[in-house]
Amino acid sequence: MTANAALKARRDRTIGPYSPLFYDEPLQFVRGSGVWLEEANGERYLDGYNNVPHVGHANGRVVAALAEQAATLNIHTRYLNERVVDYSERLLSTFAPRLDRILFGNSGSEANELALRIARQLTGSTGVIVSDYSYHGTTITLAELTTGLRTREPLGPHVRTLRIPDLDRDQRPEAEVLAETLAELDAAIASLLDEGYGVSASLFDPLFSTEGMPRVPEGLVAGIVERVRRAGGLVIADEVQSGFGRTGGWMWGHDFAGMTPDLVTMGKPMGNGHPMSAVVTSEAILDEFGSRNEFFNTFAGNPVSAAVGEAVLLEMEAEGLMDRAKRLGAEARAEFDRLAATHDFVRAAKGTGLFLGLDFAVDGVPAPELAKRVVEGMKARNVLISRIGRDESVLKVRPPLAFGEAELPILLGALTDSLSDI
Amino acid sequence: MTANAALKARRDRTIGPYSPLFYDEPLQFVRGSGVWLEEANGERYLDGYNNVPHVGHANGRVVAALAEQAATLNIHTRYLNERVVDYSERLLSTFAPRLDRILFGNSGSEANELALRIARQLTGSTGVIVSDYSYHGTTITLAELTTGLRTREPLGPHVRTLRIPDLDRDQRPEAEVLAETLAELDAAIASLLDEGYGVSASLFDPLFSTEGMPRVPEGLVAGIVERVRRAGGLVIADEVQSGFGRTGGWMWGHDFAGMTPDLVTMGKPMGNGHPMSAVVTSEAILDEFGSRNEFFNTFAGNPVSAAVGEAVLLEMEAEGLMDRAKRLGAEARAEFDRLAATHDFVRAAKGTGLFLGLDFAVDGVPAPELAKRVVEGMKARNVLISRIGRDESVLKVRPPLAFGEAELPILLGALTDSLSDI
Repeated sequence: MTANAALKARRDRTIGPYSPLFYDEPLQFVRGSGVWLEEANGERYLDGYNNVPHVGHANGRVVAALAEQAATLNIHTRYLNERVVDYSERLLSTFAPRLDRILFGNSGSEANELALRIARQLTGSTGVIVSDYSYHGTTITLAELTTGLRTREPLGPHVRTLRIPDLDRDQRPEAEVLAETLAELDAAIASLLDEGYGVSASLFDPLFSTEGMPRVPEGLVAGIVERVRRAGGLVIADEVQSGFGRTGGWMWGHDFAGMTPDLVTMGKPMGNGHPMSAVVTSEAILDEFGSRNEFFNTFAGNPVSAAVGEAVLLEMEAEGLMDRAKRLGAEARAEFDRLAATHDFVRAAKGTGLFLGLDFAVDGVPAPELAKRVVEGMKARNVLISRIGRDESVLKVRPPLAFGEAELPILLGALTDSLSDI
Repeated sequence: MTANAALKARRDRTIGPYSPLFYDEPLQFVRGSGVWLEEANGERYLDGYNNVPHVGHANGRVVAALAEQAATLNIHTRYLNERVVDYSERLLSTFAPRLDRILFGNSGSEANELALRIARQLTGSTGVIVSDYSYHGTTITLAELTTGLRTREPLGPHVRTLRIPDLDRDQRPEAEVLAETLAELDAAIASLLDEGYGVSASLFDPLFSTEGMPRVPEGLVAGIVERVRRAGGLVIADEVQSGFGRTGGWMWGHDFAGMTPDLVTMGKPMGNGHPMSAVVTSEAILDEFGSRNEFFNTFAGNPVSAAVGEAVLLEMEAEGLMDRAKRLGAEARAEFDRLAATHDFVRAAKGTGLFLGLDFAVDGVPAPELAKRVVEGMKARNVLISRIGRDESVLKVRPPLAFGEAELPILLGALTDSLSDI
């Protein structure tokens, strides 16, 4: 038995055989540095997939902040704690002025749960609108509105789904697609009101990442926001994937989408792998919730997490990661567009900043098996990527934001070669 | 304005004025070491309250493991990862053989959510039985079964509460109290079945910590387990407070209570403050859940958390913390009993191991104001404790498990003096 097979057998007997693994033959990494991961035998892989190690695997500044604060003090927020206030001020300064309060958590699931809990309480309604191919977390409430992966729970009776159109797939005029989608939304809202659920919130990722980064009609997001608010609901932006400068030109996905939500949730890249998350909202919303609930989260906002979160922001700034992501993202996107134009099984290039994809289709039919072959082909060339979208036909290229000039040609070269194999 | 008042004002403008703080005049700590916390001016406090820093504040072994693994690799479980398997094996070896599988999370809330989600799926029922003064976490599902603190959500229609008796308060014969409580449970179960909810689970802390550590009748826990299972439900033990050797003589609260649950949840002390949690269950239950859901939790089971969790177990073993907790807990309990016997406003001493209390009452009426005065009196003597129980009349003395011989006289002396002030 190989070392990996032996480890897999022990894994099956502890965390179980259903705990998901990437690739037909899973990989085992033993160390990481920057945008590279290394196997026990020294074989190195370029990380073109992982967004959690945002400023790079084992980043020196983050590790130092973590170690220093953990050696000094780690405590909950029932005692005064300057680090959580320092970090909150720094993080909140990246938002529009009316988003000026923060509640910490330990995972994206906790953040989305809390945002929905707040929205339900404030509106007195339970109805929720999500996209028809999305994922927001693991809890019971979130499982009942999961459309993008398999859960045993059926969709809740208070949940309505909206099909997010993709102009790269739908060839009709943009205005027609927009009108049709907003009419669907109007019908969904009317049905929530008719059935007595009301509208508590819409919950969307402003990039529509899980959906496969569709090219949506101009005015779609504004139309959703306007209709949800008119129906009495709050607008939640799930920035677990789209936040922290992922798009290069914008710190937050909702800025990219041109709107200001009522609640913003964030997680994955926030602590570079340290478990932390947050809900950002307005003073009025926080006070309304805070005054009516004894709310406390033991680990959330501890000084170690705050030190780590602050180090991530400082590192982004010191290294100019957003500017670099914007520049490299544009370069990469141009090459993705060229690959789309020169391969007839690539329908379109997708994405913005350092979140890019290629949508595979043959005769207009999504071709997930081709996408899978490219993912495995990239692995054979020591580059990690994955797939997304309702058909799993879209490549998911979403490296650490610390991705650099030196790595881009490696990724693009491997991608060109992998496409040549098809 | 004092430095603390200035920080409080900035805190109000970020995490908000409703984020709870201990004490009439809150404390700000800037460092911790072992069982001591220190203010900016160098004033030191003995920690008689915090169970999260289980093996001691800023424990060297834990900090070293955290820093070393964070500097090496922090990644999710979709790649093979030996540390999470090593840690899982070590942790699972502390359970009865049939509890042989583990699912990781990032907080006690996530663990309890997941346990309930599994129970709902496996039983096809939604009914839950909890105690009438308990707290299990912050999510919507958990808020709907919260009875021990203020939430805006009413109790869910599928929730039944059981009043946990305390033989220190109820002077009737033990057998009569037991029969009455189990009859209440029978009625609760019958009503869940009648109304079509069925019984998915019971969810109790085996120590009944939040309830105020009542002295329950012999046979109560066995009676609950037997009835819940007969009704088709699963038994969940919430070990967020009772686990990891807190009781001194037993690694898990359910061992202390003499039963084997179907699902065990754990959190707070697990990572000495690092955000991590778990659900431990059987192979059959995990396979049933795993095969029917795509379940994945990004941060959960990462190698940094695994290294930290392993360091906690190793430190407990190296320092013999359970044995010490058992010995010191027995000494402290004897002194608590003496204080109860010699102060007429102390109804009874409570608790086991390093989780102890004194229940205050005047003429048989709970006296939370006396308990509060003692908590503040202890603070004035530089010792941190708190209060629990349905009347907040029970002192909560629950120090880090690393509490030592040298500290016990300090805590007991301050307690004796604080009682003298009443």
